[in-house]
Amino acid sequence: MHEPDFTLSAGPTMSSLRVQQAQGRPMIFDYDPVFQERFRETERLVAELFQTTKDVVLMQGEAVLGIEAAARGVVTPGLKCLNLVSGVYAKWFGAWLRDYGAEVIELEVPYDEALDPAQVREELERHGDFALVALVHSETPSGVENPLAEIGPMAKDAGALMFADVVSAVGGTELLTDEWGVDIAIGGPQKCLAGPPGMSLCVISEDAWAAIERNPNAPRGSFLSLLDWRDTWIKGGRVKYPYTPSVSDVNGVHAAVGECLDDGLDEVIARHATAARACREGVKAMGLELWPRSEDYAAHCVTAVRCPEGAEVKPTLAHIRERYGVMLSGGYGELTERLFRLGHMGPGARSLYPVVAVSAFGRGLLDLGVDVDLAAGVEATLGVLSERHEVVAT
Amino acid sequence: MHEPDFTLSAGPTMSSLRVQQAQGRPMIFDYDPVFQERFRETERLVAELFQTTKDVVLMQGEAVLGIEAAARGVVTPGLKCLNLVSGVYAKWFGAWLRDYGAEVIELEVPYDEALDPAQVREELERHGDFALVALVHSETPSGVENPLAEIGPMAKDAGALMFADVVSAVGGTELLTDEWGVDIAIGGPQKCLAGPPGMSLCVISEDAWAAIERNPNAPRGSFLSLLDWRDTWIKGGRVKYPYTPSVSDVNGVHAAVGECLDDGLDEVIARHATAARACREGVKAMGLELWPRSEDYAAHCVTAVRCPEGAEVKPTLAHIRERYGVMLSGGYGELTERLFRLGHMGPGARSLYPVVAVSAFGRGLLDLGVDVDLAAGVEATLGVLSERHEVVAT
Amino acid sequence: MHEPDFTLSAGPTMSSLRVQQAQGRPMIFDYDPVFQERFRETERLVAELFQTTKDVVLMQGEAVLGIEAAARGVVTPGLKCLNLVSGVYAKWFGAWLRDYGAEVIELEVPYDEALDPAQVREELERHGDFALVALVHSETPSGVENPLAEIGPMAKDAGALMFADVVSAVGGTELLTDEWGVDIAIGGPQKCLAGPPGMSLCVISEDAWAAIERNPNAPRGSFLSLLDWRDTWIKGGRVKYPYTPSVSDVNGVHAAVGECLDDGLDEVIARHATAARACREGVKAMGLELWPRSEDYAAHCVTAVRCPEGAEVKPTLAHIRERYGVMLSGGYGELTERLFRLGHMGPGARSLYPVVAVSAFGRGLLDLGVDVDLAAGVEATLGVLSERHEVVAT
Amino acid sequence: MHEPDFTLSAGPTMSSLRVQQAQGRPMIFDYDPVFQERFRETERLVAELFQTTKDVVLMQGEAVLGIEAAARGVVTPGLKCLNLVSGVYAKWFGAWLRDYGAEVIELEVPYDEALDPAQVREELERHGDFALVALVHSETPSGVENPLAEIGPMAKDAGALMFADVVSAVGGTELLTDEWGVDIAIGGPQKCLAGPPGMSLCVISEDAWAAIERNPNAPRGSFLSLLDWRDTWIKGGRVKYPYTPSVSDVNGVHAAVGECLDDGLDEVIARHATAARACREGVKAMGLELWPRSEDYAAHCVTAVRCPEGAEVKPTLAHIRERYGVMLSGGYGELTERLFRLGHMGPGARSLYPVVAVSAFGRGLLDLGVDVDLAAGVEATLGVLSERHEVVAT
Repeated sequence: MHEPDFTLSAGPTMSSLRVQQAQGRPMIFDYDPVFQERFRETERLVAELFQTTKDVVLMQGEAVLGIEAAARGVVTPGLKCLNLVSGVYAKWFGAWLRDYGAEVIELEVPYDEALDPAQVREELERHGDFALVALVHSETPSGVENPLAEIGPMAKDAGALMFADVVSAVGGTELLTDEWGVDIAIGGPQKCLAGPPGMSLCVISEDAWAAIERNPNAPRGSFLSLLDWRDTWIKGGRVKYPYTPSVSDVNGVHAAVGECLDDGLDEVIARHATAARACREGVKAMGLELWPRSEDYAAHCVTAVRCPEGAEVKPTLAHIRERYGVMLSGGYGELTERLFRLGHMGPGARSLYPVVAVSAFGRGLLDLGVDVDLAAGVEATLGVLSERHEVVAT
Repeated sequence: MHEPDFTLSAGPTMSSLRVQQAQGRPMIFDYDPVFQERFRETERLVAELFQTTKDVVLMQGEAVLGIEAAARGVVTPGLKCLNLVSGVYAKWFGAWLRDYGAEVIELEVPYDEALDPAQVREELERHGDFALVALVHSETPSGVENPLAEIGPMAKDAGALMFADVVSAVGGTELLTDEWGVDIAIGGPQKCLAGPPGMSLCVISEDAWAAIERNPNAPRGSFLSLLDWRDTWIKGGRVKYPYTPSVSDVNGVHAAVGECLDDGLDEVIARHATAARACREGVKAMGLELWPRSEDYAAHCVTAVRCPEGAEVKPTLAHIRERYGVMLSGGYGELTERLFRLGHMGPGARSLYPVVAVSAFGRGLLDLGVDVDLAAGVEATLGVLSERHEVVAT
Repeated sequence: MHEPDFTLSAGPTMSSLRVQQAQGRPMIFDYDPVFQERFRETERLVAELFQTTKDVVLMQGEAVLGIEAAARGVVTPGLKCLNLVSGVYAKWFGAWLRDYGAEVIELEVPYDEALDPAQVREELERHGDFALVALVHSETPSGVENPLAEIGPMAKDAGALMFADVVSAVGGTELLTDEWGVDIAIGGPQKCLAGPPGMSLCVISEDAWAAIERNPNAPRGSFLSLLDWRDTWIKGGRVKYPYTPSVSDVNGVHAAVGECLDDGLDEVIARHATAARACREGVKAMGLELWPRSEDYAAHCVTAVRCPEGAEVKPTLAHIRERYGVMLSGGYGELTERLFRLGHMGPGARSLYPVVAVSAFGRGLLDLGVDVDLAAGVEATLGVLSERHEVVAT
Repeated sequence: MHEPDFTLSAGPTMSSLRVQQAQGRPMIFDYDPVFQERFRETERLVAELFQTTKDVVLMQGEAVLGIEAAARGVVTPGLKCLNLVSGVYAKWFGAWLRDYGAEVIELEVPYDEALDPAQVREELERHGDFALVALVHSETPSGVENPLAEIGPMAKDAGALMFADVVSAVGGTELLTDEWGVDIAIGGPQKCLAGPPGMSLCVISEDAWAAIERNPNAPRGSFLSLLDWRDTWIKGGRVKYPYTPSVSDVNGVHAAVGECLDDGLDEVIARHATAARACREGVKAMGLELWPRSEDYAAHCVTAVRCPEGAEVKPTLAHIRERYGVMLSGGYGELTERLFRLGHMGPGARSLYPVVAVSAFGRGLLDLGVDVDLAAGVEATLGVLSERHEVVAT
């Protein structure tokens, strides 16, 4: 089978030439002065991306590693946590919290809705003593974005540590880590940044560090340890790693974040918003139903679509991949069979990639006997893309 | 300005990963044994591609170099030539023939039509003593393909050398160099093969070599000399070059031709035919007019479309490039302002690239006030692509 | 500062073109069928490399992750372990075992010596009831190789699980995982395989799996969990990952192991042995002292050299890097200031790279006032390299 | 056979990562605005490199194309030319001049000597009416550099056009095109610039253009035509090419020249000078004889060494390539069997590459029974390299 022509999945997603060339550089020693400076610079770029002055820790391993490391770091037996759930990932996070001994209160909304700040406020007030509030900023499995901008400050005001999984949010939607009072933010390079999946981009506040240091169960001398990074790398003057970084992934993240900032973060976010809207309009015009109940909280990274009557997710995806060379995604976890996801991240949010996604999706459904208005769909997608800027020529 | 997201031009066109990686290999000495063997293997691959057992000469320089070299090689003052003209390139070739002193009879059809074998036969019979018959197999500037399969044998039977410019034909449409009696065929790597433009792929028959050797004006000791390649490289046992080959372009051509043959020449040609048909159906459904009078002879490499009333070629292309990141082509030579060309060559003939071309083109025209039925166009394009193979899944 | 011209360090080390190009491929979705097949094929290649029919688990994270995962997986409180120590890494491993609650007996030799199988046998017999025996096959920090071939079967006979850290051994020296009775072997791609550092190559026997499954403390639902990989990936038919693999690192490991096997494992091992011997002869001829007491157990991956009187490790390395563009390594852990290490791994074990290492090292010492016989050193290195095969030409 | 580990030949030679990555970029349309701007920028960079404000023409084809194009452009039947010969290339150039009908006076010195400005002055004065003076700045086949700085102004003062083949000089040794009165300078990207071989870097003065325009035999409408480039590209405002440029080679030259200028031309030239001196000292210390009679005019690009008694060039090179993976060069043309050439160009002039060249050469000769003092040679080479800058560390 041939490599895919288009990877418009839920991530890892298609990378830019700059990222590819960075990943393909000759391998060098992690203690080479050039590499060490590049590692430090990557931290600085990530801080700029997260709009934070807090410590950045680059752990080697996909973002789940950073999330686990942070959760194990702060949770002590009996720690009172408010886990805000609007999707699969948040649900899993709650299970982890309980595993580590936390007392978990869960505020859950259906997975096709976003969290409601008013409800969160109510919950915070009802209990008044949460040590940790956690949410997933952008639920990749269902394409729903949560109002971290409103919830973050509430949690902070309530005296809790604010934990945000921003894996598929960072680089695709607004994220003001410091202004919003986020103590722990874990991003992933393989979503809107379109970099390699092998790294966790962790931001840790002083309050969070203090909690981790107080916690006797926090991982120490472990690949899961944030403290090892703080003690060996940060406190040691950023010259000695506790673990060998993945040289090519650091090169890739350096390039991905650098490109995002060079293009301009606002411009990049606008590009993701437009691509998402173009896909949504296309999908609706074809007569399909978006997964999120309201477009107000549809994510910028992927467009989730309810699997229409008569269709099956897996065979449809396989058919689209085989016939058209386009890789889209289905649901994830308990939603696996219930929805499709069209990715529009990184380079995939540029140019006519949304047309490719909508065309492949619509035509694939048609091939398999699902009645969609393909022409209207593609036209609607192109309509949004054409609005992007004024006409310049003639 | 950002690099284009999609290069769907008349060539050079988007290359495959295999070609890119070949081009990006470390430079090595042209006399390195590994490179020399790769050069020889490239010749063998090119021979297989052209379906010939004749000599292959790889000259360093875009195909115009090979065409000029061959023409200067065979033309002596007063040589009687039949130049078959259905487009810009053939017209230019005739001018060259005259420059070199040939007596040129030209059989010309309008540039939106293909040559008619019956007319050619008539012309051959009327004169009976042509030393050279020349045509352009696929006229890239106007997207018209000529019936070399029928004309080649006629010329051969008439005792003439058959010269074919197959620059944009090879690798995209059927080409049986030996079976069709072609004496001189010059291909380009940057069209359907989607390789680098820096090389002329020349096939030279024994009859052609004899003519060149007899010709006192044939270039010798010159970058334009085919004889230098024969004497130094071929007769010397393929160990010594008359001129330094462009190492990375040889790597690129090796990869491009290798990939074409590995995919299967028939499969690759079918892919180009389908992509071309998809574009034509899309363009027609949008209400636009194809440049070729009949689709029977529409080329596989590019789809040429008449510039519609009210549109201008250059500003439209500039707008599409700027707004959508898609690079299409206009006309060439005297046709520059009269038509658009959508390329579908190499990887651009795969997957949904024709949808990208048609979408960008149609939406771009719409943006500039030209009334086209964009939805119908994209639907028609997708309709053709969906027919490609039977439905496999479900 | 410029990138290094030569990376001849203790790893990560210089990679081949094939690895670089694999790392630089476009990113694709981890559930793309092409990627999934590549992932499975990488497992098969790794199995061939380790000469094993046991399960291979590819964890995303440098080899320390696999080592920690395996140790946490098998160790239960009170588990009786024999930790064989001849260097820094084994010492650290013992600390981990104790952290996880094991009862650890340590057999330690000076760090410039290898383990003695007779002593190990004695220790095994004295206790008779070890559940786990652990060693480091090749101690990268000190360039010492231990006799796993002899110790492995003893441990197995004694009824213990045999754990081997083969991070810098695999691909550079003989390793017969199954024949030697190794239950858990953890390799690293960034040493003799010259791939990316971001992955742990884990081999797990049925006995080891059984121990892990019995262990209530074995990581589950964790980035550190081998069981997650077994349950989700292996038992699920190798279609679903518990964690997102690092796409480019998988590509890189696939290429690195593939290249090793294509070149021929015996040939590759012989190449490392020769390069190591060439470096040792060069170092000795310069009048310096090897770190290992006997060359019988000098490692194939790096040549460790005692820091001579009057020299300091860090400034010397910095000078060599700055003046000559060559990156060598110093010691590690408690040996940091006591030795230098010249790497000869992967492509660095080919051609004249040992000459580059010895030249840079010797000349750098001279520059800083250390008296070495540079000429004799380089001559000796070249002498070994010239013996490699018989003279072929003339 | 494996690719070479080291390409230290007379060119094409090893390229830098920056050049490789530029060559490996996706192919784009030559009329894409990004490419057109890159093409124009390449011209500006080349002008800076040549220190000229004259027109730069980038012809597609190795430098021989530019040399032939310029010679055919200026030579009219009977044109009186002074051809200054100190090597193979200049000799060939004279033959070309005669072929084109010039009246050629040749001032020739033995091929192991450089031209003598006093003799040139004498010759100029004796005739007084040369229309063209020609020399090869750096004779790659024999490693001899000629005093263009002195001869150029003389020729200019004498009213002649000054033609300089600077193929292997540019980027490796001082070249002040304008200050030295050079009218036509043709450089090659594959020597000291370590770029791809597929391009001629031509500088043409107004006087030279005037001569070409006056010449009825100057190529027009030909791949060999400088006028086509002037009329179509330059006069047309640099938007239309007469011939399709080789996209990847333009990318490669852009990168190669850009890197040279970014590193600093003076620094790059000094690097070549040092590497050349290091090789010469090494060769002499081994007891071998340099080809140039005096080191005063030994070239910066390659070190030419007389083939010692008892050795044969070809088998020695084959042995070195096979055993050590190092590609060196022999002589060229009539010197083929008489000398060896060690290249030190581009990245090959950095770091310890001269040590690799000298080691491979010396050890290879030893292997084949030639008595050389290898140890002394390598020591001498390293001695020069260590002098480069003061000791920084400790």
